Amino acid sequence: MNQPLHNELKKEFQLERLILFSDAVFAIAITLLVIEIKIPELSHASATDSALLEALGHLIPKFVGFIVSFLLIGLYWTIHHRMFGYVTAYDKKLLLLNLAFLFFIALMPFSNGFYSEYAGVMLGNKLLVPLSFYVLNFCGVGFINYFMWRHISNPKRKLTEPPIDPLTLKMAKLRSLTVPLIFLFMLPVAYFTHVLIAVYMQLLIPVTFRIFKKVVHKKYKVLASSHT
Amino acid sequence: MNQPLHNELKKEFQLERLILFSDAVFAIAITLLVIEIKIPELSHASATDSALLEALGHLIPKFVGFIVSFLLIGLYWTIHHRMFGYVTAYDKKLLLLNLAFLFFIALMPFSNGFYSEYAGVMLGNKLLVPLSFYVLNFCGVGFINYFMWRHISNPKRKLTEPPIDPLTLKMAKLRSLTVPLIFLFMLPVAYFTHVLIAVYMQLLIPVTFRIFKKVVHKKYKVLASSHT
Amino acid sequence: MNQPLHNELKKEFQLERLILFSDAVFAIAITLLVIEIKIPELSHASATDSALLEALGHLIPKFVGFIVSFLLIGLYWTIHHRMFGYVTAYDKKLLLLNLAFLFFIALMPFSNGFYSEYAGVMLGNKLLVPLSFYVLNFCGVGFINYFMWRHISNPKRKLTEPPIDPLTLKMAKLRSLTVPLIFLFMLPVAYFTHVLIAVYMQLLIPVTFRIFKKVVHKKYKVLASSHT
Amino acid sequence: MNQPLHNELKKEFQLERLILFSDAVFAIAITLLVIEIKIPELSHASATDSALLEALGHLIPKFVGFIVSFLLIGLYWTIHHRMFGYVTAYDKKLLLLNLAFLFFIALMPFSNGFYSEYAGVMLGNKLLVPLSFYVLNFCGVGFINYFMWRHISNPKRKLTEPPIDPLTLKMAKLRSLTVPLIFLFMLPVAYFTHVLIAVYMQLLIPVTFRIFKKVVHKKYKVLASSHT
Repeated sequence: MNQPLHNELKKEFQLERLILFSDAVFAIAITLLVIEIKIPELSHASATDSALLEALGHLIPKFVGFIVSFLLIGLYWTIHHRMFGYVTAYDKKLLLLNLAFLFFIALMPFSNGFYSEYAGVMLGNKLLVPLSFYVLNFCGVGFINYFMWRHISNPKRKLTEPPIDPLTLKMAKLRSLTVPLIFLFMLPVAYFTHVLIAVYMQLLIPVTFRIFKKVVHKKYKVLASSHT
Repeated sequence: MNQPLHNELKKEFQLERLILFSDAVFAIAITLLVIEIKIPELSHASATDSALLEALGHLIPKFVGFIVSFLLIGLYWTIHHRMFGYVTAYDKKLLLLNLAFLFFIALMPFSNGFYSEYAGVMLGNKLLVPLSFYVLNFCGVGFINYFMWRHISNPKRKLTEPPIDPLTLKMAKLRSLTVPLIFLFMLPVAYFTHVLIAVYMQLLIPVTFRIFKKVVHKKYKVLASSHT
Repeated sequence: MNQPLHNELKKEFQLERLILFSDAVFAIAITLLVIEIKIPELSHASATDSALLEALGHLIPKFVGFIVSFLLIGLYWTIHHRMFGYVTAYDKKLLLLNLAFLFFIALMPFSNGFYSEYAGVMLGNKLLVPLSFYVLNFCGVGFINYFMWRHISNPKRKLTEPPIDPLTLKMAKLRSLTVPLIFLFMLPVAYFTHVLIAVYMQLLIPVTFRIFKKVVHKKYKVLASSHT
Repeated sequence: MNQPLHNELKKEFQLERLILFSDAVFAIAITLLVIEIKIPELSHASATDSALLEALGHLIPKFVGFIVSFLLIGLYWTIHHRMFGYVTAYDKKLLLLNLAFLFFIALMPFSNGFYSEYAGVMLGNKLLVPLSFYVLNFCGVGFINYFMWRHISNPKRKLTEPPIDPLTLKMAKLRSLTVPLIFLFMLPVAYFTHVLIAVYMQLLIPVTFRIFKKVVHKKYKVLASSHT
């Protein structure tokens, strides 16, 4: 193999290694979630169908937590997957941002477990601590995600060749900001009104996405037509 | 490297990343199984060969569960491996189907552990809960597996180039449906007759595979000869 | 990319996937070992240097078990790494042999933990159960390793192109058999003489390797010279 | 594909496999850290915000330990990533050095957990055992890292093509030695003065790095100018 091609391949492999390392962290975080759900251990004499159903019933918040965490980590994996589909080079800062991103991913099983453990009580007692912890973890993931989009799309850095198309980039940035901002806004709402209202605010996320999509597309069309 | 080849490689790497992420989930799920088997801890004074053998004896259902789960996750890994051997592109829906598939794979250590924990009692007391949980998990894996075969072979999607040969595809689809259907049928059998009969129904799976294989091959030969 | 080259690459990627899946299992098994070592938890009032040293002292068998398991899994990873350095294609049987191999690798943390937990007592009380379990696990790894070498080097299968040079192959096969055979021989020795003698038999392994190496090289030279 | 190119690719894949195996170990070690932090389990009646905050407060040393371990394993991953960016071939010794390196990486969750568990008491009671364990683990990682740099840059081994530029190499070697040497020096300082002074010595690491960088650059400029 000639040297320049070899070096080119080596450089690409270094980027792939960064990506596959991230994948491994995602995969472990997503699979470790199930460890938190302990198999109900009844004495064999008292093990009846109704007793087992009751035991499974107590595990429901853990199952819900497992499903939600799985979805969210899965969602952020697809975002990471899409983002690095554009990336063709990396620098030290991207490496550090990626590590920080993975830090909050690795923390997710804990904060989601903590949140779902007290989900039932939270609504009655207006508990704010588990919700706040959960919210802050999401803000961590979301804001770092935003900074990663900003960093890779910075034309000076030359990390994406060809550059990401401006509309896609705008949407990606807006989306990555929406999640942590809505989550952050949940805290005063929970404090001044009721935790339940804050929890339902999560439903705003897909709604905001749709609105942004329409607005951005309309604006882009205007721009596109004004250019021609 | 010229740009089109580079983009082609990038696109392929994105698919590879999806596959390797799945592999990591499979590998973790399959290796985590052993964590459920706790080393018997006797006081050193009372540790005799017979006491240790007895302690190991109590672990037998866990060992059986470990072996069965290992085989099943291993089996689904080989199916996933074979399926993605045909896939040459991916879309958003394949990504989601794959995540759902991995969800049920990640859940398997729990449902198999739950099932094998009460395997002994189940047969005597006609316990239905652990069996139902186990069955539903398999139905999840099996049906999603079927939908994945359908999705990747849909000619409009152009996810497999060259397309999968029709006989292989038919067999793969039939097989992927057989497992969850037989499992689903186990539930009424267990309810109206006896759990033991339902458990033995698993033996129908390889038998049905053979019958399908013969039927499909015969039909294909007829079709092939009628075309020439 | 032209179709034949693409298919060739796809086939290679399928083999790589098999290998990287195995690597993930190795990596998880090797890293999970440390989970067995629990951090000593003393009340903060009674936490003195001597109390902590004593607590660490109780962990010594676990540390020894961790180091030995790490070395052994590491050793079998390097063997697997070397073996698949020759492999250029795979078939269904290699896939199954590899899964069986990984099964015994995944079981190693348990059997080594069990063995090292009772290492101290074993020597005094002539305990045979933990040793037997440990020995049987190694026989599993070793014999399957041997069958893998036999399978990949079978010229009818065309799994290694170019074929492995006969001397290297002979050495690899002999080595892969030596380990389980010496381990198997440990069982009657432990039963009829003393566990301690059986444990020291492990030292025979490197000695036998050297003898084999000399014998095989001498024989090969005779053959080589008789051919010229 | 023609044979020489194929063999070249195979050789490179073997090196990639070594690297990706290491990545998996890093990823697992870094993600397992969070398992040590158990979700506080209060009875639902007594779960108030203040009680939960207090429970989280008790977890602070574990969180600090998690963050520090994450940073350090992340740091060593970036060093490993950079180092293997130069490596183009491997030999048996590099394989063994790498395994030894991974051994100390895999041990890090334990020693950091042990250290942070007693961080509070340590400062009051002058506990030396947790600090010593932590220090020795870092010395292991650091010294093996140094030997790896030495080994891969040895021109006789031809493991890096093109060779690493001498300035980069010198800096890498000096850095890899600084960490374990400062850590090692912490032990007598802790013994003869106070644990707290030893802990703050870690701040010397970035300072020393800056000094080295300046000295090496100055020396290099002198050399460079004397050569021209």
